[in-house]
Amino acid sequence: MSEFAAWMQDCQSRMEDVLAHWLPPAHIAPQHLHEAMRYAVLDGGKRVRPLLAFAAGEVAGADPARVRHAAAAVELIHAYSLVHDDMPAMDDDALRRGKPTVHVEFDEATALLVGDALQSLAFDILAGEPLAPDAGIQLDMVRLLAQAAGSRGMAGGQAIDLASVGRPLDLAELEFMHIHKTGALIRASVLLGAHCAPVDDATLGALDHYAKCIGLAFQVVDDVLDAEASTATLGKTAGKDAANNKPTYVSLLGVPRARELAQELRADAHAALAALPACARRLRQLADFVVERAF
Amino acid sequence: MSEFAAWMQDCQSRMEDVLAHWLPPAHIAPQHLHEAMRYAVLDGGKRVRPLLAFAAGEVAGADPARVRHAAAAVELIHAYSLVHDDMPAMDDDALRRGKPTVHVEFDEATALLVGDALQSLAFDILAGEPLAPDAGIQLDMVRLLAQAAGSRGMAGGQAIDLASVGRPLDLAELEFMHIHKTGALIRASVLLGAHCAPVDDATLGALDHYAKCIGLAFQVVDDVLDAEASTATLGKTAGKDAANNKPTYVSLLGVPRARELAQELRADAHAALAALPACARRLRQLADFVVERAF
Repeated sequence: MSEFAAWMQDCQSRMEDVLAHWLPPAHIAPQHLHEAMRYAVLDGGKRVRPLLAFAAGEVAGADPARVRHAAAAVELIHAYSLVHDDMPAMDDDALRRGKPTVHVEFDEATALLVGDALQSLAFDILAGEPLAPDAGIQLDMVRLLAQAAGSRGMAGGQAIDLASVGRPLDLAELEFMHIHKTGALIRASVLLGAHCAPVDDATLGALDHYAKCIGLAFQVVDDVLDAEASTATLGKTAGKDAANNKPTYVSLLGVPRARELAQELRADAHAALAALPACARRLRQLADFVVERAF
Repeated sequence: MSEFAAWMQDCQSRMEDVLAHWLPPAHIAPQHLHEAMRYAVLDGGKRVRPLLAFAAGEVAGADPARVRHAAAAVELIHAYSLVHDDMPAMDDDALRRGKPTVHVEFDEATALLVGDALQSLAFDILAGEPLAPDAGIQLDMVRLLAQAAGSRGMAGGQAIDLASVGRPLDLAELEFMHIHKTGALIRASVLLGAHCAPVDDATLGALDHYAKCIGLAFQVVDDVLDAEASTATLGKTAGKDAANNKPTYVSLLGVPRARELAQELRADAHAALAALPACARRLRQLADFVVERAF
């Protein structure tokens, strides 16, 4: 295993522990809801957002023992959005991470409440442990996550996505959607990781630019994977976007040009890191990791 | 108009202003989502939770200009829960505050996202303005609201409620459900209002006891109203609980005993206030207001 792969595995396992710690145990009432919350979050996903938070925290010199709580908060927002997105009123998907989605395994009402309660838990965690150099900065972190999740962030991107089904979008509109839908939370992951230590504005600016590139690259790669991979490899239903007549980078650009775009965004992300004073090796490796999935 | 009614009206109108200020304008993208968020929140309800926050803030000597932001945060959590509760997967209700519910007026996917985004906005507000004597206390407020909203608070109560349909509950189980479903957020309203100024533990303890009594009284009265009022008076579909075979205080106790219980809870709430050093006139009046709706 490469040194980077070992680092990823270590972060992922730390993440699993901290998520398992924060999620209420399934034997505490309401048991059914708590069981469903754990089902939705644990043992799944590559934890890309937490990895970004850990890597950005390293640049800022933050204690990983603090960063992991911020990372857990972001991951819970991501997990809740998947549960709600999979529901019949939205994408109506039956498979996620190779398992039945929450509304299939449990029921729709439970899936709705699982998402709602996971969002609350994210803010409970972000406010509940001393994470930042001071409480004022930690309040800023709460606000940053709230805005990344809200109507001008992830939930807003979801609304733009819904409104775009079956309607031709140009590249600028597609990018606008993804900057909200995926980009906002990716950006929050990076910035929250960095805020766990004192960090200057120049570093934050460079990280912000990096995060924007990586967020878009992530989506471009997802579109390529959705177009090319099988359901078994993907762990979720493949080819859904084309079937739903949803605009994607592949439908607008074709696979070869989408792959080129992912490479360009990786180069931009690397360039943003070059401006950083501290070593940003992990962030560079993560940019490579995100983009190389498409090849 | 009584002096108390004038105070209520003043608070309600201040609340409307601050909510209208925080909700993104309907002309900003995603317009459809922002329009639906404003539809869900503005021009509706008695704003009982904000009234409690203002009244508790007065006891602690808090600046109402601060309290109104905390009150707005609680009201947004309440508003989001109504939007999600009304959805077909939950209570499947078509009418709320005399208007079509959000999923009827817009659609289900929009209702889902409206609820999600309103919850995020609540935490954005609670972290975004200086509200408390210091940032550490304000972080505690964020955590308090997150826990009141989450799986061991409101969302958990909702899950217990769902699991109870068609199943006989005894009085203790019914109370356990309502302490979560309604009580947690009522308690948060009172405590968040008080936390906007320096407040000692004895005062918080008294307010906490008051809030628990008022939260239960509120639910008992709601059950009486649901059993007795017409849909027109109520502004939402009446008699739903009986139709859904849901256990209520009325189904367990009958209307006369439920009314007596509401009176006893009012007396307990008043008794809790007697221990307070500062004048708690507004909280006393609110206890009367909540209970007298049932008569």
